[in-house]
Amino acid sequence: MTLTEKAGQLVGTWAGQLGELKSVEDVEAEVTEYTIGAVASFGWAGAVDARLDDVVETVNRLQEVALTETRLGIPLLFNVDAVHGHAYVAEGTAFPNGLGMAATWDESGAETIADITATEVRKTGAHQNYSPTCDVAREPRWGRTFETFGESPFLCGRFAAAMVRGYQGDGLDDPESVVATAKHFPAYSEPVRGEDTAPVEVSSYLLRNVFLPSFLDALDEGVASVMPCYNAIDGRPAHGSREYLTDLLRGDLGFDGTIVSDWGGVNMLHEDHHVTDDHRGSVQMTRTAGLDVASVDATAHADNIVSLVEDGELSEQVLDASLRRVLSLKFRLGLFEDPFVDPNEARDVVGSDAHRSEALETARKSMTLLQNDETLPLDPDADVLVAGPNADDPIHQLGGWSVPDPEGTDVVTIRDGIESVCNGTVTYEQGATMNERLDIDAAVAAAEDADVAIVAVGENWYLHEFGPTEESGTAMDEFPNRTTLTLPDAQRDLVKALHETGTPVVGVLVTGRPLAVDWMASNLPSLLMAYYPGTMGGQAVAETLFGVCDPGGRLPISIPRSTGHLPTRFNHFPHPTPIGSEEHLSSYDPLFEFGHGLSYTDFEFGSVSVTEETLPPHGTTTVEVPVENVGDRSGSTVVHVYVTDHASSRVTPVRELCGFERVSLDAGKAETVTIPIDAPSLGRVDSSGTLRAVPGEYTLHVEDQSVTVTIESDFN
Amino acid sequence: MTLTEKAGQLVGTWAGQLGELKSVEDVEAEVTEYTIGAVASFGWAGAVDARLDDVVETVNRLQEVALTETRLGIPLLFNVDAVHGHAYVAEGTAFPNGLGMAATWDESGAETIADITATEVRKTGAHQNYSPTCDVAREPRWGRTFETFGESPFLCGRFAAAMVRGYQGDGLDDPESVVATAKHFPAYSEPVRGEDTAPVEVSSYLLRNVFLPSFLDALDEGVASVMPCYNAIDGRPAHGSREYLTDLLRGDLGFDGTIVSDWGGVNMLHEDHHVTDDHRGSVQMTRTAGLDVASVDATAHADNIVSLVEDGELSEQVLDASLRRVLSLKFRLGLFEDPFVDPNEARDVVGSDAHRSEALETARKSMTLLQNDETLPLDPDADVLVAGPNADDPIHQLGGWSVPDPEGTDVVTIRDGIESVCNGTVTYEQGATMNERLDIDAAVAAAEDADVAIVAVGENWYLHEFGPTEESGTAMDEFPNRTTLTLPDAQRDLVKALHETGTPVVGVLVTGRPLAVDWMASNLPSLLMAYYPGTMGGQAVAETLFGVCDPGGRLPISIPRSTGHLPTRFNHFPHPTPIGSEEHLSSYDPLFEFGHGLSYTDFEFGSVSVTEETLPPHGTTTVEVPVENVGDRSGSTVVHVYVTDHASSRVTPVRELCGFERVSLDAGKAETVTIPIDAPSLGRVDSSGTLRAVPGEYTLHVEDQSVTVTIESDFN
Repeated sequence: MTLTEKAGQLVGTWAGQLGELKSVEDVEAEVTEYTIGAVASFGWAGAVDARLDDVVETVNRLQEVALTETRLGIPLLFNVDAVHGHAYVAEGTAFPNGLGMAATWDESGAETIADITATEVRKTGAHQNYSPTCDVAREPRWGRTFETFGESPFLCGRFAAAMVRGYQGDGLDDPESVVATAKHFPAYSEPVRGEDTAPVEVSSYLLRNVFLPSFLDALDEGVASVMPCYNAIDGRPAHGSREYLTDLLRGDLGFDGTIVSDWGGVNMLHEDHHVTDDHRGSVQMTRTAGLDVASVDATAHADNIVSLVEDGELSEQVLDASLRRVLSLKFRLGLFEDPFVDPNEARDVVGSDAHRSEALETARKSMTLLQNDETLPLDPDADVLVAGPNADDPIHQLGGWSVPDPEGTDVVTIRDGIESVCNGTVTYEQGATMNERLDIDAAVAAAEDADVAIVAVGENWYLHEFGPTEESGTAMDEFPNRTTLTLPDAQRDLVKALHETGTPVVGVLVTGRPLAVDWMASNLPSLLMAYYPGTMGGQAVAETLFGVCDPGGRLPISIPRSTGHLPTRFNHFPHPTPIGSEEHLSSYDPLFEFGHGLSYTDFEFGSVSVTEETLPPHGTTTVEVPVENVGDRSGSTVVHVYVTDHASSRVTPVRELCGFERVSLDAGKAETVTIPIDAPSLGRVDSSGTLRAVPGEYTLHVEDQSVTVTIESDFN
Repeated sequence: MTLTEKAGQLVGTWAGQLGELKSVEDVEAEVTEYTIGAVASFGWAGAVDARLDDVVETVNRLQEVALTETRLGIPLLFNVDAVHGHAYVAEGTAFPNGLGMAATWDESGAETIADITATEVRKTGAHQNYSPTCDVAREPRWGRTFETFGESPFLCGRFAAAMVRGYQGDGLDDPESVVATAKHFPAYSEPVRGEDTAPVEVSSYLLRNVFLPSFLDALDEGVASVMPCYNAIDGRPAHGSREYLTDLLRGDLGFDGTIVSDWGGVNMLHEDHHVTDDHRGSVQMTRTAGLDVASVDATAHADNIVSLVEDGELSEQVLDASLRRVLSLKFRLGLFEDPFVDPNEARDVVGSDAHRSEALETARKSMTLLQNDETLPLDPDADVLVAGPNADDPIHQLGGWSVPDPEGTDVVTIRDGIESVCNGTVTYEQGATMNERLDIDAAVAAAEDADVAIVAVGENWYLHEFGPTEESGTAMDEFPNRTTLTLPDAQRDLVKALHETGTPVVGVLVTGRPLAVDWMASNLPSLLMAYYPGTMGGQAVAETLFGVCDPGGRLPISIPRSTGHLPTRFNHFPHPTPIGSEEHLSSYDPLFEFGHGLSYTDFEFGSVSVTEETLPPHGTTTVEVPVENVGDRSGSTVVHVYVTDHASSRVTPVRELCGFERVSLDAGKAETVTIPIDAPSLGRVDSSGTLRAVPGEYTLHVEDQSVTVTIESDFN
């Protein structure tokens, strides 16, 4: 291969609007001239194609060019952002976004979602998915909170691992698998002020124990690709950091897959971080750091690679190592055998009934009932008012990382869902947009005539930094934004006006992140957290409100009281109170706790025990929890196991999640839930990146019960 | 010396209420039995003595015991918390608290304050002052923000250094000097959620570049003692960390003075941090870490030292090294010559007219006019209403780290000050307490009859975590508290009611920290930031309002818009905006900027230049700024110089303060201000704890002008 051909394989390009508009013809020219290796022509917000038939046509056309109009005929690798289903293709199946998925506490469900997504992605011609996120939610002001699996490193790790299994299937030679991409390495999700891509200036102890664990889990599952974070940590932007990408990721953690840039991550080194003088310097820095693929850096990056090698400033061996990884991935994916896709097969698979049915099941499992005074479940014969900006808006319901335009989608909104399950009169009066009052008087009048008012409020579609978006029509500082977690006046006015009618008002929160809804929590009888519930989300909301299914979701993130209470985390560190605890407001005072969620039935836990009270450092014990459904209807709950370390040479959290199991039981039925706990998961990640528990005593907590286990020294 | 005698010299005790109540007799017994080395019987909130004559009597009585009733007759070292003057003695002089001091931008003034404080402290019998703070304000929710010198590491370092010079004078053999204590090492002031003593989980890069610089400055001045922070950093509580106390402080930074615990810092290791099992383990850990004096650990600590040495778990050499430092300090202080103090001398010195006059001068210089539509300065013949909870409350005005009881104090309140400078009718109607409405109607009626209403709002006396305090009578979650930065309803109601009368309302903020006073900023014509202005603060406020002096203070900290905007820092890092800057709300959007403050006159800056445009890594250049008072009255301003690094291997702040000079000019006068800039101060602190600037280009900014300087390589 020539130097240019090598360089071309190590860069990607795009078709669509990204800074500049690039057409498919432009991409053809780049492929022909540079042997460009990767293309993103669909599967992201500004992509040239969002409709299924167009997607497939472009893919096949570009593969044809790569195979026939380049010297070597190396097929292209297409990549997509299908983070909650293949949601950037209008016909694709959108599952609940990250927080909603995590609220199911159902790992095998997450694996199924990823499996379905892989099938839809692959059948439309793409091979790598920039998912799963391993980012742990640390800052609800951050606009990507909804993509995460919540605030527990353990939960995030379990879901990331499940999704890697689902995406990569039994191996990349499976024609319905895709390359999974663990992102954003090593720590992205605690940006200063919640500003997207602002520095994550955390200690190395937090880096290891909050941010690394979910990557360790993804790596354990053999994730084939890793994406660095845009931001700096410890003053070092990850894309240019040999410490993070090579010493830590390839060295300590033994990763041997591809490292792919997060889109503009190379350019940002000189343009924003100012750690290099120009793009050439940034190319050199990222290549030295360990980057394999510059995702959208296109020909400029390839030119600079060539120039750097020719000038002796970059070793060709570095390129060859990256090239081996990139080509090996294409081989494993079978691209050298057949890179083309069949439009009919795509039509059969993408958004199929089976996939929509799984989306409905996931959304049902995610529904989290925050409070209820027995207004719910609703009488199927009730006359209801449906109101609010999020009751009948498919795009708000899908949330970010989905098509921003409803054309071609087939979304069941909350209004649709209620109309399908309610036998009474269903009146719809929107009442407010995201930030504007509509005819609130009409909504009030309708509420007065109804048995119950259902008001769906929350957030709209956004990415990274909230907007303004064409869709929402909001100004940059209007809700949703970075600085506020309360609902905007228009939505609050609507809810209050409905409440003042005396008709019971059920609040439904369609939102990417926890909102500080203290007024609603104090005044409304019932409050349902629906997250961004995806294609079938409205059906799931309706079925939950009317008791067709039990609200089995549990919060994967704490809901804070206000921005002044941030961060609000269940796994905070203990610390002294020099003036005495009587002056110390609680360190954990959420509006709704991590793990919270009500069922329509009641569960009782029997006496908690463990199979092994002492175990070696690599042993396992099993927590056994008898669970009985003592109510009069079937339902589900989640058993959570937390650990507290008695004493350690470094400060450890007051509690950390270390095990969980979702259980569904019919009325009157009982079951002993068994949750295996590996000894290392009681401990901390050491300086070499290994999770281990030091010998000593640890308390395991299940609700208000606790059991102490002892990890023995290896020498015992 | 026996082992017990050695151990005794390495611990301190207290007389007063600290957990338990300890009487002077109890201390006598401890001294006799253990040869205890240090005592705190006054100079802190719960001390047994707060009145001058009592203080002196107790000191002499305890020294007598130490000299005559112990085998070795080693004199005691008394320590105090005289952080803004000798304010825990009722008769003492209280200067503005830290933020107010820093608002003067007058280092020589700070040195004078410390010099006066040293004199008052020493004449009352104490020898070590737990001051200055080197903590950089990072989190206004933190209850110790008011003690800091603001948010600039450079400004904090300059003030800390000035205060070390003032405290330690020409050397500790000077009988009017005290041991200065740089605190709280290495990083205390960015606790999670603003919870006092919560972990400071910052990166090592931030640790070095935000938190260490002010300690470096204090160490450069030969500070004789350092106090660790209570909290953990990187999972390690500082009191038990050999990494911070020995490797970093004694090793890299070369410190050879005493390391004294922050009061209960030893006990907290097992009680709160859970890094040891019990007090014995904590004693071992702190001694191994490098602690010399356990400030209030008393006999229990001494017992455990003896036991650990006897059991071979602690080397006696470790004790001997500490002992040498402790005894050498007592020798240098001249305690072995004469440890007694003279009550008459104390009466002459403490709170003397000269000291009060300096307190007034400092308070005048600190007054920071945030906004003014020409309502100020007031006509001396105006009829004024004085209102608000902070207009006539001496204790609110002193703020924390002062006596919490007005008995014996002689404080000039704002009401007193206005009555002394205003020739018109002065009506006083408080209108509200901190959290309760009083007779707002009466205040409104008085405002209607007045030419202007002056309303002093803000915070009361608090320490660490706000309260409840006996004095304020507030419940734990009432204002001031950790989670809110807005004024409580009662105070807002009062201000709004006065504003609605149409009489111009001048707001005065007597507060420890920046409050999010957006309503006042949007509605009141004039707003004055008074901080906690100390003994003479009310006089300074009145003189400023009536134009007797010019408001020459400038904000040493940004005033944020809301808790949702935290942190709000002028020296934030730049970072990418992946979706484009049009979606990115500003990274610095304060209500009032760092450095802001209005004068009653106008200044114009001429063309800024530097004496050297290129300089070696240890060179100096001087920024020259022609400044002219173009208004019609005398006044003062502050010239600020900021630096921006063009490109660096690690991310650097968008700007960092690197020089300043306060200048006072009569109307029509001009002067060229010269500000020397040492090359290293343009750079960053490297991994060995040394401040250095790497060769390259740096831009210096003065208001809207900039000059580029180049640091050359040593080899040029």
